[in-house]
Amino acid sequence: METVYLDHNATTPLEPRVLAAMMPWLEGGGNASSLHSYGRRCREAVEIARDQVASLLGVGPPEVVFTASGTEANNAVLRTVAEGLDSGHLVISAFEHPSILAAARRLEEQGFEVSRVDPEASGRIAPEAVAEELRDDTLLVCLMLANNEVGAVQPIAEVSRLAHERGVPVLCDAVQAVGKIPFDASELGADYLTIGAHKFYGPLGAAALWIRRGAAFSPLLVGGSHERHRRAGTLNVPAIVGLGAASALVEREIDQWSAAMRRIRDGFESRLSALGGTSVHAANVARLPNTSNVAFDGIDAEALMVRLDLRGLAVSTGSACSSGVVEISETMRAMGVSEAQALGSLRISFGKDSTEEALDRLMEALVEEVETLRRLGEPEVAR
Amino acid sequence: METVYLDHNATTPLEPRVLAAMMPWLEGGGNASSLHSYGRRCREAVEIARDQVASLLGVGPPEVVFTASGTEANNAVLRTVAEGLDSGHLVISAFEHPSILAAARRLEEQGFEVSRVDPEASGRIAPEAVAEELRDDTLLVCLMLANNEVGAVQPIAEVSRLAHERGVPVLCDAVQAVGKIPFDASELGADYLTIGAHKFYGPLGAAALWIRRGAAFSPLLVGGSHERHRRAGTLNVPAIVGLGAASALVEREIDQWSAAMRRIRDGFESRLSALGGTSVHAANVARLPNTSNVAFDGIDAEALMVRLDLRGLAVSTGSACSSGVVEISETMRAMGVSEAQALGSLRISFGKDSTEEALDRLMEALVEEVETLRRLGEPEVAR
Repeated sequence: METVYLDHNATTPLEPRVLAAMMPWLEGGGNASSLHSYGRRCREAVEIARDQVASLLGVGPPEVVFTASGTEANNAVLRTVAEGLDSGHLVISAFEHPSILAAARRLEEQGFEVSRVDPEASGRIAPEAVAEELRDDTLLVCLMLANNEVGAVQPIAEVSRLAHERGVPVLCDAVQAVGKIPFDASELGADYLTIGAHKFYGPLGAAALWIRRGAAFSPLLVGGSHERHRRAGTLNVPAIVGLGAASALVEREIDQWSAAMRRIRDGFESRLSALGGTSVHAANVARLPNTSNVAFDGIDAEALMVRLDLRGLAVSTGSACSSGVVEISETMRAMGVSEAQALGSLRISFGKDSTEEALDRLMEALVEEVETLRRLGEPEVAR
Repeated sequence: METVYLDHNATTPLEPRVLAAMMPWLEGGGNASSLHSYGRRCREAVEIARDQVASLLGVGPPEVVFTASGTEANNAVLRTVAEGLDSGHLVISAFEHPSILAAARRLEEQGFEVSRVDPEASGRIAPEAVAEELRDDTLLVCLMLANNEVGAVQPIAEVSRLAHERGVPVLCDAVQAVGKIPFDASELGADYLTIGAHKFYGPLGAAALWIRRGAAFSPLLVGGSHERHRRAGTLNVPAIVGLGAASALVEREIDQWSAAMRRIRDGFESRLSALGGTSVHAANVARLPNTSNVAFDGIDAEALMVRLDLRGLAVSTGSACSSGVVEISETMRAMGVSEAQALGSLRISFGKDSTEEALDRLMEALVEEVETLRRLGEPEVAR
């Protein structure tokens, strides 16, 4: 039985065309800092990748810094704004990625203050709610472009406009949006933006931070003079080449990917009614075209996930980043979802290559397992 | 003309057996945090790699934390000892890797004090010289196991003993030593030890930090609960699998690798006399078996490096991490090497697969180019 992977918001499979671009660098690499021709070839490959990322984002190549992960890129920005200060204030959405929630919490422990803005029940952050929290000592606003768990797309441009009126820079975590919706980083208006290759058919180990020209930046990792002193550590050439190749694919194919995912996702949601007692989170706001986070009444979603897994269907409860944790997710809590509903919610995230056959298998399994679990009455605990 | 790569201290080629171990994870990976079977398989692969690294180092698997680079691992330790403090003192060797030199400099800017211990002219740090710098407020001693530029092996065990007498923990950067000399991390006596896969035929993007049981640690990257809350960020499964596979190879084959490199390196040095006017740095202390850092009288090493490069021979001046910088390296300065001699020094670092034919080509090219450059009289500037 072939496994059907429907957890693309956790990670995407590496696209064969991307792997093909990486292979020469895996098989015969070098150190991009070396002065000899091996090193020079590596540097050239890295700069091509930088051009590809910059082109996708609609920004200048010198504004792109490569990191090893979105977490590292996000952490670096929060460190930057706090650099040399003992206190100050941040405004973040309450359902940011853990790398921002945790970095903000650490700053709180050091004497900074953090305002957490809850989204509306729809899953969307109201720009005015962010604006209300801005203070004279606000150092940064953090808002993701699209939420990883429910897929709600956030009003970055409007939030950036309001933040800039108060002179506050904005970090936009766009990790979950790339490859799902088209966007132009410079038009979003944010000052920092993070992307991670493994969420859009690129490799693990390569991410990028866009730093708007003139925005402050202080490196998180220090050492060699790599990345114009903005990020030390030997450049991971094969992974960076993969990030570039994946960016080029997205730029060329995003409309077709997006349409394919939307078609299958919408097909899924229209067939959900067969089950009864379901509702889709963030159904009434702009949402990633691949994401369905569904609350099943009277169901323990983890039990359902395990049952689907046994049938070769990989889906998720909550975000992969908070998996293993029994508490309900920050996203659900922030959206005001009841505990019962949160614990009954399953995230299905389709990919550009998800098939109708996969959808049929999912529906067949869901109908049977949801019925079984509901018949068992008490929510099953499978931990 | 096939290129002869003799810059293994900058980075090593990825071993085909390591790449073979990585391929299934590149072609069909997953997110190790996911709860479904895809995620479980990834977690299992990561734990096998952790066992392999732990076995190589002779430590317990729970003491091994995966990072993306040696730089990140080193930075994390310096951050740890300074956590929550406004001041304190560090003792480092003056020729540590840039990731430690820069992290120490940053702490200095924040109010900490740093004592830098110069090596003896031999290239070896005298343990007593470290001991003399220890103070009641010393937070950490940093000493690399082997210097990257000249290959001098450092007396970690003795330095650790002296530091521990004063209750001071020790960070040993062993990045340059793994795969070249056998060692057992627990016997070295350090409290933290870093290794990086791409220096021993593993992939870029995977490194490990060993943290002695009970030693303090505070994460540099925060976010998800990965690595038992010691390092946030989606695990780079293919790279970690590669790090594990490379560690297993080293454990099995180190004696044979080491002997092969020593044979060819010693052959090189015995043939150097044909050139006249050469001397080998750190020739009279324990040294990595693959490293020859040679001072050529009356030669600009960068011009020589470029000429060798044009003949398909990749060697290095200084360390890859400080390449592109015109100043003489910290290592040379710390060893008290004159500027003229430092600028005339070339690092040849052999690999486990370097051949006699490669050595013949190197010698032939060296004899001709050194003669030409010396005949040209004035050191050529090829920048």
